[in-house]
Amino acid sequence: MKRQFGCVAAALLLGGCAHQHHGGVGGDHFGVREVGSFHIGGRQVTLSGLPEKEIVFTAGAAPFRVNPNGDFEVEQMYVQYVKLHEPYRKGRYPLLMWHGGGLSGVTWETKPDGKPGWQHYFLKAGHDVYVSDAVERGRASWARYPEIFKTEPFFRTKKEAWELFRLGPEGSYSTNPAARRAYPEGTLFPIEAFDQFGKQGVPRWATNDGATQAAYDQYVQKVCPCVIMVHSQGGNFTFNAALKAPGLVKAVIAIEPSGAPDVGKVDVSPLKGVPHLFVWGDYLDRFPLWTRITPNIDRYEQALRRQGTDVTRIDLPKTGVRGNSHMLMMDRNSDDIAKMIADWMVAKGLTR
Amino acid sequence: MKRQFGCVAAALLLGGCAHQHHGGVGGDHFGVREVGSFHIGGRQVTLSGLPEKEIVFTAGAAPFRVNPNGDFEVEQMYVQYVKLHEPYRKGRYPLLMWHGGGLSGVTWETKPDGKPGWQHYFLKAGHDVYVSDAVERGRASWARYPEIFKTEPFFRTKKEAWELFRLGPEGSYSTNPAARRAYPEGTLFPIEAFDQFGKQGVPRWATNDGATQAAYDQYVQKVCPCVIMVHSQGGNFTFNAALKAPGLVKAVIAIEPSGAPDVGKVDVSPLKGVPHLFVWGDYLDRFPLWTRITPNIDRYEQALRRQGTDVTRIDLPKTGVRGNSHMLMMDRNSDDIAKMIADWMVAKGLTR
Repeated sequence: MKRQFGCVAAALLLGGCAHQHHGGVGGDHFGVREVGSFHIGGRQVTLSGLPEKEIVFTAGAAPFRVNPNGDFEVEQMYVQYVKLHEPYRKGRYPLLMWHGGGLSGVTWETKPDGKPGWQHYFLKAGHDVYVSDAVERGRASWARYPEIFKTEPFFRTKKEAWELFRLGPEGSYSTNPAARRAYPEGTLFPIEAFDQFGKQGVPRWATNDGATQAAYDQYVQKVCPCVIMVHSQGGNFTFNAALKAPGLVKAVIAIEPSGAPDVGKVDVSPLKGVPHLFVWGDYLDRFPLWTRITPNIDRYEQALRRQGTDVTRIDLPKTGVRGNSHMLMMDRNSDDIAKMIADWMVAKGLTR
Repeated sequence: MKRQFGCVAAALLLGGCAHQHHGGVGGDHFGVREVGSFHIGGRQVTLSGLPEKEIVFTAGAAPFRVNPNGDFEVEQMYVQYVKLHEPYRKGRYPLLMWHGGGLSGVTWETKPDGKPGWQHYFLKAGHDVYVSDAVERGRASWARYPEIFKTEPFFRTKKEAWELFRLGPEGSYSTNPAARRAYPEGTLFPIEAFDQFGKQGVPRWATNDGATQAAYDQYVQKVCPCVIMVHSQGGNFTFNAALKAPGLVKAVIAIEPSGAPDVGKVDVSPLKGVPHLFVWGDYLDRFPLWTRITPNIDRYEQALRRQGTDVTRIDLPKTGVRGNSHMLMMDRNSDDIAKMIADWMVAKGLTR
């Protein structure tokens, strides 16, 4: 009866009950107003003069002639959103989650170990959450090369992911899952789910940055004001998008960004009033690419600090949390890290 | 006060209010227990002996050497689900939505004209909805060819989509949107959104049917008992999946299936107790591919009927509804068609 009474009271006071005993983090569900998606950006391209191809659909069947010439939509990106029903919505702005290189929006969804990911966490925390696939990957689709995309794609090997994402030292990857060795000090990545994580990888191109930035910029114009949470390669796209639309990007949450504008060439003053959070995992000193990349990001962070931008930096090892990989949102303590971020959002006035 | 009183009464009678004034079709929101995703199927492949490639990330930058050899996860598929909070859930089984060829799960999401799609409709109708991307497309990702995928992909032109999906007669497509001519009798596809629809297209391979069927079969084993709603090329995968797991597939809703098993070679008796719904749009006699394909599907439908399977067929033109395209779920009357399907599901005992 207690729950019913609470519900009745809520009904009389608020004209509704759902948010009374189910709303917010820890609730067993959340009210959703809309699940939807759209593609944004891109252009129509016409191919002509290419030879017809014969395609055999099934062995033995007569070949099927395909004419590759014609019009195509290319260089668009894909965005999916979950909008919360009002009493469940605590966030002042939509939370946009931008993925890293060779990956898609799946980064933010259910973790490779089957546990809820950050998309689910921040929905339960009361934010409308937008998860996107950048140009060239996932549901954004990709275009014929070299006629439209200028180069051929490349595919990240599992060994590169194992080392680059800092699960174990160089040479510790093995084709045999049982023989893979994480850092001796341990990793918080669920390595038993590494093959499952491998299924999330998508091919990448080296020559689509312009189209990718253009689509992201249109995305910001369409759905912001917003907060952007970004991972890895998405960092540079996010910082540039924020510099172009500082009035629309209300905060930037950068999870191990792998790139940032050159502060020698870019004026960061438009971001004076935009709070930034940087979150870093462990073992950044163990892999050459990271020791080479991080100084650039740190220079960007310092430039923001120098001009008085509200910048928070969480170096997890310095807080006593050891073993986080580059895929923080998939690590065993991902909910703890999400809570640090959610608390920061509350502290910065991004919630109601 | 009326709404509040209804809520109070519901609280006392049912111990909750949400489903009282928000549940089901027409409610302004629905309670969600989980939004999640997973990849299923596929295998690890090792490539070796391929030459290194030099990739130039940005014009003028030093080339970056990439070794394409190593381990990859390939031939998996992607599944995303929205599970409803109990009082909102009316469906007895999860509703799985399988897309057609050269497309992804986006088919079922928000329509190209920006209006809610069938994913949203059937969630509001009280079904847990699963939307997937089959092997080779969207978030399922794709693999290097010809080393892993045996052939090169092909890309559907907008002209082919315009004609094959029956928006207008052969020759009525133009590169210039304003010059495109729909069937003189009219089309229910929102042709002003055709370029937006074009952004949903993904490349396709002719040689991945085996891997695609294998992943779909594993998907059925993982999440069913279920109801499968399928479009176009997905038809053959669905019928075969159902024949292999008749105890798990509780009903099949085939939206313009473009393929079906050869009834001369396949025993359909396992599906005696599995209700089937076939839904067909307009202008099927106007494009040669359809006049060639549909007799095979009709033979399959007849074989099911002959053995006493509960089969319902909706030929929309015969019901007086003219102008539906192959993309029924995107046409202007998509909600009316969804209601016919939802009513059929109720009639077949697939809801509570």
